[in-house]
Amino acid sequence: MRSVGKRAVVLLSGGLDSATCLALAQRAGFDCHALSFDYGQRHIVELQAARAVAAHLACQEHRIISLDLRSLGGSALTDLRLAVPEQPVAGIPVTYVPARNTIFLAYALAAAEVVDASAIFIGVNALDYSGYPDCRPAYIEAFQAMANLATRAGVEGHGLRLETPLVNWNKADIIRAGVDAGVDFSLTVSCYQADEKARACGRCDSCRFRRKGFLEAGIEDPTRYR
Amino acid sequence: MRSVGKRAVVLLSGGLDSATCLALAQRAGFDCHALSFDYGQRHIVELQAARAVAAHLACQEHRIISLDLRSLGGSALTDLRLAVPEQPVAGIPVTYVPARNTIFLAYALAAAEVVDASAIFIGVNALDYSGYPDCRPAYIEAFQAMANLATRAGVEGHGLRLETPLVNWNKADIIRAGVDAGVDFSLTVSCYQADEKARACGRCDSCRFRRKGFLEAGIEDPTRYR
Repeated sequence: MRSVGKRAVVLLSGGLDSATCLALAQRAGFDCHALSFDYGQRHIVELQAARAVAAHLACQEHRIISLDLRSLGGSALTDLRLAVPEQPVAGIPVTYVPARNTIFLAYALAAAEVVDASAIFIGVNALDYSGYPDCRPAYIEAFQAMANLATRAGVEGHGLRLETPLVNWNKADIIRAGVDAGVDFSLTVSCYQADEKARACGRCDSCRFRRKGFLEAGIEDPTRYR
Repeated sequence: MRSVGKRAVVLLSGGLDSATCLALAQRAGFDCHALSFDYGQRHIVELQAARAVAAHLACQEHRIISLDLRSLGGSALTDLRLAVPEQPVAGIPVTYVPARNTIFLAYALAAAEVVDASAIFIGVNALDYSGYPDCRPAYIEAFQAMANLATRAGVEGHGLRLETPLVNWNKADIIRAGVDAGVDFSLTVSCYQADEKARACGRCDSCRFRRKGFLEAGIEDPTRYR
């Protein structure tokens, strides 16, 4: 049985951006089907954070899909032999997971077809981000064009929109919008190498963007550092 | 250690088309990294067929990735409660798996980045096919455009080509080309509901296209029917 409301699939990592994205989708009136991935990431506490955020925001459904990305290798986020950089780097950093957003969005597309959703929300951001190619607006537009041709929704004409509400915001904007939409950021984890108690390193790319964001937003940083 | 030859990732299902595609990629001089998916398909004997084809054609590597598509539901190929149609149907049939080729190609893109491949081969075919939206040339072109923006290869400019050598061929053309390139079609399984001994039903969409193809090619059909 499907509800009569409009439905969205929302990619939820357990980090700050996707939590805000989920809250904005809920506020926009969508019944939200949150989707998280267990892909052998170092920061497995992210998935616990995703569960806590999904519960706190009372979304319709939260599904965690197991992906075998570790066996493909090639990223410091899934390969324990590679070190997470603690200083800014030029170019695409080693924390980049090959084709990760493409794989995540492909699953979101499948989930959207199955639950008959009219939107997919993804919290990509082209300003305060780590330089991953699959976070750029041009990439999102190209995925949208492909999605329009890939699915029943595309063929039968009722369509499916990729929504990226955070894409042009800086971290401070995202934090302010999240607080406004009811996100409890103490539940979220951004650190690429958080410990088993979800305490952040304070030094990786992701920690630096987050700390600076709270500072600029003038909002107290609830992150627990180790 | 990487070999000096050019590399390709080849999607290999165990069916007739992808076996031909692999043989053509090998013949074109690529070191082939074959990729198959265990996605809870009914026709699990396809994976045994894929292994046999990969071994027979002596490709560089054959990786089988487990995907959790069954929990998403929505297709007769993964949901045992839905019947496989045995007559032609109008529109997109129930055997369509939501976003399947998008998910497969997303993994191929990740694998291509990791092994530094310059091509991905996929045996889609726009003539003798089951009416799936993600087999059409326009879909493939859109995936190519997205892939160009999604990855290191896209950003750093050395590029990655999606190769679809079968796209405009009919089944008889594919069979003739496969035989010419050394495929042993007795190893392949096309049936959507093959039994545990890989014997075909002879009645589903896929069986009908295959049988007709051998007939038109004037090549003896090695398929074992039950």
